[in-house]
Amino acid sequence: MRNILLKIEYIGTNYRGWQTQKKNKPKKNSKTELVTIQETIEKILRRILQEDISLICSGRTDAGVHAKEQCVNFKTNSEISLNKLKKALNSLLPNDIIIKSAKRVRANFHARYDAKSKIYRYLILNRGHGSVFMRETALHLYRPLAIEPMRRAAKILKGRHDFKSFQATDKVEKNSIRTIKAISVKKRGNLIMIDIEADGFLWNMVRNIVGTLLEIGRGKIKEASIKKILRAKMRKYAGPTAPARGLCLLRVVY
Amino acid sequence: MRNILLKIEYIGTNYRGWQTQKKNKPKKNSKTELVTIQETIEKILRRILQEDISLICSGRTDAGVHAKEQCVNFKTNSEISLNKLKKALNSLLPNDIIIKSAKRVRANFHARYDAKSKIYRYLILNRGHGSVFMRETALHLYRPLAIEPMRRAAKILKGRHDFKSFQATDKVEKNSIRTIKAISVKKRGNLIMIDIEADGFLWNMVRNIVGTLLEIGRGKIKEASIKKILRAKMRKYAGPTAPARGLCLLRVVY
Repeated sequence: MRNILLKIEYIGTNYRGWQTQKKNKPKKNSKTELVTIQETIEKILRRILQEDISLICSGRTDAGVHAKEQCVNFKTNSEISLNKLKKALNSLLPNDIIIKSAKRVRANFHARYDAKSKIYRYLILNRGHGSVFMRETALHLYRPLAIEPMRRAAKILKGRHDFKSFQATDKVEKNSIRTIKAISVKKRGNLIMIDIEADGFLWNMVRNIVGTLLEIGRGKIKEASIKKILRAKMRKYAGPTAPARGLCLLRVVY
Repeated sequence: MRNILLKIEYIGTNYRGWQTQKKNKPKKNSKTELVTIQETIEKILRRILQEDISLICSGRTDAGVHAKEQCVNFKTNSEISLNKLKKALNSLLPNDIIIKSAKRVRANFHARYDAKSKIYRYLILNRGHGSVFMRETALHLYRPLAIEPMRRAAKILKGRHDFKSFQATDKVEKNSIRTIKAISVKKRGNLIMIDIEADGFLWNMVRNIVGTLLEIGRGKIKEASIKKILRAKMRKYAGPTAPARGLCLLRVVY
């Protein structure tokens, strides 16, 4: 039995996220019957391999969130060549999901448990008019953001902290301590990129951090307040959740 | 009466082009009832201005072709502020069309007749796997292309020539002489960009030139043949028409 690692790129716009939590499943007869990325890939894998396949993911991404390199693994008895498997998958997958590579990994490799860290990027287009070329992948804000206060506030979040204030209130984890290994706010022309690398993320953590930094960039939350927000350990002190479309899982570090 | 110039960005994927020629109109009850970009914008302009509006375009783009800066003008008796007009348009337009700017121009400005040249870019992603982020805006070719022969062949097309060999056979213009002011084949990592600036373009001219250069890059047409193809003045000697999705109108020069 082989253990296979797939590296996957996807646009999350038309999906209910990587996998839906039971409590978030839409009602039957819901108007928008979106599927998850996981079930889309598993269905095609089963068809190709004629086996029941379950994908283990480095970490779920929310509805509407994209990935430049999501990592998932699965076990199979099939002896199909990995190049053939990749080609078969890409010919059957919709054009918003692409398998970048398929490699054999050691039998006990686990895409989630073995991940040392994950790197997310949040993309903001900051100019007078939006861009059709980035309509799916960036948040457009037409009022100029003050970058320096955002940058200084971001620095304070670096390190090992209890990020409870930045956790989705409806999906609380017992242990909300995580380590942000790197965080940066970059500006390239009209584009602002907020990159965060952490050993793990709470639900909505990146989007809630970004939402808070955006309020600081707008001058609605004071830069110095970020310490209080962090210490408060209450969601209501942080800024709103930034929209999903600006968020992208860049890479998983093993 | 004011004459207004709009600069427009659009993703052509979901449209039948800027404007459909009568002979290309799909039959009624056609399965995919796509509209044109022109009628989409005119409809909203009429709604905002409560006037019958006709847009004059720098030049039509084909179905599936994009624009980073298409230029169109129209006349109106309305006294709406141009900033308000732009905002109203952008709030009503679908998210794959954006008005970048709305400016008043002299009464006799004509978006087509006054255009000195237009610059098109054809984008190719040349690597083993495609990219979901470029699925609408680049042609993916997994076999490596030989850039140097493409570059040398492109140079030969520069200048004033009869481009009949690169004209769509079903839309022939009497005068097929055009001047290519600049043409380049650039490579940035996995991306290949073919940029062409000309005083005017025949129907499908860019896509037929690109299709021919791609055959040269694949080694299927000899680099030296480009002169013969140009001289032949017959469409059948040139390469196939490259797909629309890689093509984008970058800019109109006035």
